[in-house]
Amino acid sequence: MTQEKTQTQPKQAQSNSDKKAQQYGVTPQSVDFNDWYNEVVKKADLADNSPVAGAMVMKPYGSALWERIVRWLDDEFKARDHESLVFPTLIPMSFIMKEADHVEGFAPELFTVNKIGTEVLAEPYVLRPTSETIIGHMWSGWLNSYRDLPFLHYQWGSVFRAELRTKAFLRTSEFYWHEGHTAHASAEEAQAEVRMILDLYHQFCRDILALPVVRGEKTASERFAGATSTYSIEGMMRDGKALQAGTSHYLGQKFSKAFGVKFQTRDQKEEFAYTTSWAISSRIIGALIMTHGDDKGLMMPPNIAPTQVIIIPVGRKDNFDEMVAEGEKLAAELRAQGVRVKVDKRDGVTNGFKYNEWELKGIPVRIELGPRDLEQGVVVVKDRTSDEKETLSRAEAVSGITSRLDAIQAFLLKRATDFMLDNTVTVDSYDEFKAAIEAGKWVRAFHSGDPESERQIKEDTKATARNIPLDDAEFFAEREEGVCVHTGKPAAYGKRVIFGRQY
Amino acid sequence: MTQEKTQTQPKQAQSNSDKKAQQYGVTPQSVDFNDWYNEVVKKADLADNSPVAGAMVMKPYGSALWERIVRWLDDEFKARDHESLVFPTLIPMSFIMKEADHVEGFAPELFTVNKIGTEVLAEPYVLRPTSETIIGHMWSGWLNSYRDLPFLHYQWGSVFRAELRTKAFLRTSEFYWHEGHTAHASAEEAQAEVRMILDLYHQFCRDILALPVVRGEKTASERFAGATSTYSIEGMMRDGKALQAGTSHYLGQKFSKAFGVKFQTRDQKEEFAYTTSWAISSRIIGALIMTHGDDKGLMMPPNIAPTQVIIIPVGRKDNFDEMVAEGEKLAAELRAQGVRVKVDKRDGVTNGFKYNEWELKGIPVRIELGPRDLEQGVVVVKDRTSDEKETLSRAEAVSGITSRLDAIQAFLLKRATDFMLDNTVTVDSYDEFKAAIEAGKWVRAFHSGDPESERQIKEDTKATARNIPLDDAEFFAEREEGVCVHTGKPAAYGKRVIFGRQY
Repeated sequence: MTQEKTQTQPKQAQSNSDKKAQQYGVTPQSVDFNDWYNEVVKKADLADNSPVAGAMVMKPYGSALWERIVRWLDDEFKARDHESLVFPTLIPMSFIMKEADHVEGFAPELFTVNKIGTEVLAEPYVLRPTSETIIGHMWSGWLNSYRDLPFLHYQWGSVFRAELRTKAFLRTSEFYWHEGHTAHASAEEAQAEVRMILDLYHQFCRDILALPVVRGEKTASERFAGATSTYSIEGMMRDGKALQAGTSHYLGQKFSKAFGVKFQTRDQKEEFAYTTSWAISSRIIGALIMTHGDDKGLMMPPNIAPTQVIIIPVGRKDNFDEMVAEGEKLAAELRAQGVRVKVDKRDGVTNGFKYNEWELKGIPVRIELGPRDLEQGVVVVKDRTSDEKETLSRAEAVSGITSRLDAIQAFLLKRATDFMLDNTVTVDSYDEFKAAIEAGKWVRAFHSGDPESERQIKEDTKATARNIPLDDAEFFAEREEGVCVHTGKPAAYGKRVIFGRQY
Repeated sequence: MTQEKTQTQPKQAQSNSDKKAQQYGVTPQSVDFNDWYNEVVKKADLADNSPVAGAMVMKPYGSALWERIVRWLDDEFKARDHESLVFPTLIPMSFIMKEADHVEGFAPELFTVNKIGTEVLAEPYVLRPTSETIIGHMWSGWLNSYRDLPFLHYQWGSVFRAELRTKAFLRTSEFYWHEGHTAHASAEEAQAEVRMILDLYHQFCRDILALPVVRGEKTASERFAGATSTYSIEGMMRDGKALQAGTSHYLGQKFSKAFGVKFQTRDQKEEFAYTTSWAISSRIIGALIMTHGDDKGLMMPPNIAPTQVIIIPVGRKDNFDEMVAEGEKLAAELRAQGVRVKVDKRDGVTNGFKYNEWELKGIPVRIELGPRDLEQGVVVVKDRTSDEKETLSRAEAVSGITSRLDAIQAFLLKRATDFMLDNTVTVDSYDEFKAAIEAGKWVRAFHSGDPESERQIKEDTKATARNIPLDDAEFFAEREEGVCVHTGKPAAYGKRVIFGRQY
């Protein structure tokens, strides 16, 4: 009874679902990607605008998703002997001023607290834009000897950076993240930490979120304010733009010198610690939406989906309750396999409405269960990634659920990977460069490393250097020599740089 | 080989361990309870002071404890169909001004944000002291019909209320909590929610934290700013003071009217929603410390302890590594039973130092494992609640671990309950009342319900009405009639009120 499944291909999906999409009221991606995004975020109950300039409200579905992201990463940090701490949200203004590059980077974005109760403060506080400074200050009190090191710390919380144009998850003046902060007795150990975390982020994106990302180092102009070197993972959205999905910074001794984070070495000398910081924020939910979504709405990779299977009892007045009870039985069997499943028990809402709503929310698998199916011992199954329904024996649907979810997960990763590779162009002239960027592609090009040239490229094309892929990156890692696509000077880095427009 | 165990009784413990405590450098409770508290918090690695006025840093042990509290409560909220959301940290100043009692209660404690970047704000923001106002505002946009209700929402986060005298966990200008917010179509349903949550809090305190608490309603003068009625759970600390460990508020239609949270009823009328709010904050960690701790430091109830068993390999240079390996084997067997266990592998630190440190941190069970023990197939076990070591066969120690932890949990709850009952006095004259409060007791007394009388009592004695125990409260629930201990007028409430000095 199994019908042939047709997995939805990105391009086909757009044309196929144009008409339907209008019914559900979501603008097709091809018409306006930005409108599509904003509508999906709101209608899928991920987030809403707030009365606070630039800040969003994470609604139940968005919050459930974020909690799953937090839980997975948190378990991994703990498994690697990292410890969570909780630092204050406020930072004394003078702390931000201590590291020169840091203050220059963050000053224009700071929220200032000038009053507590009726008392006007002599020294104002800022809402943390990031916590290197206050953590450096605390560490200076905690650190004595090399025996105390490493400090492997992180915290979950929110940070504040002014944003003029709000976009839920992507650009909000308050956003949610973990910030990792570690201190080490040697530069080598700190650098190994920075790479270990980058690799963990990569694994998380690939295996859990089905996001193919390029691991690489940032050019000097794109570094974090105050970092010695910055590494990132970059993903490609369905409109061809890049999204920086996570960063890991080697801070050298810059912050430890600014805050006196020093220790006695094994040979009784005094040295400043070598520090790192790293983060993944709630903007990764934006990456999930824009990498996998289609004109029907979200597509949740099963490994992160708060709900993996939705069961829809299809009955009429006289047998609806019975179908709900059958749905619950089926749900229990799926739950016993560790599947996250819900039964849609709402009465007085049409089946079509329910189908559309759960497709909009991107639930990986839908199972319909009607009285005739029950009689025949079958159920109707539809993957979110496919346009076809399948009629399966109930037993087959239950026993096959895990491999079905795995297949959807694999399909989403492959589809996103193919899309990224198909939309990345290797160029050797600036004209090709500009044309490719204009066409919404990433380009791989040689570059001199000159910051002024990067600035000029950005002015011409709105594209920036995303990163220089690492030698062990999964994509674009080839070592090559050449001349700069912009200046004709010898290329830096020994490989091509990824350029693209970014979120 | 089992020796007789002697459970440490509170009063004995103090005199027994005075001498030892001086070695570890913790002031005995009997000498200065406040110093004891501050030293334990700092030395046990729970929290540290911060450079931000009134704010603390939660260190790894404190953070691990808080995470376990969060996890337990969060699971229970979700199991009761409550949904987490994330609202902004900032609230427009005008929102706080909308509910008259609310602004009066919170205005003196507000943190004001007056500037973003270089822009001075026409309307400042405040850092949320609590989120009723902004949540009310959002709800007014989400609510249409009775079909949308109930809203069963909560969020985890921090809130800000100015504090002059900081005390870690108990009084900090930024503190951590969940705030539950629900909206219902009827007063009855909202009131049932308020009571359901209060009962959940009670269950959490009793079964997980081993804290006996009195469930009751607050008098009018002690209500939350803007509430129609406030319920609390109150626990007694080892110095006889009360600590409000959680609150649940029935807000009636006050906030829904202020923020336009209305809906169409089943019979097509327009009505304002009935709302509730409720919270447990990080101050509950203060209650844990002050209910169970002794002069050696913390005592962690096994059900909440981040580490339940510490294994100390006792070896010399030539066999230390072997003992560590044996310790790891033992740990694996305990972990297989779901026990949270750590092995102290530190070399170059004396056993005595390790014992003291883990006692200070209140780890429920210590297991020592030496080469001679290994030969004889035994281990040495010491409960944190006992002064005696026991030598047990290794197999017995492993198989008995769960019941041992359960016994410690039960012992701590019983000890705290006895202490609370022993230190609560029923009085019928104001002289007795004053004497009992002065002696550091709680009193049970009739009261007229007159707010002015409560004010006068507070001025005389520093004691406040903690709550009026509910009819189904575990303690002090008896219904009785009498005359007010202060004014001689007829007593309100139909039962005695609990009075005490409070944290």
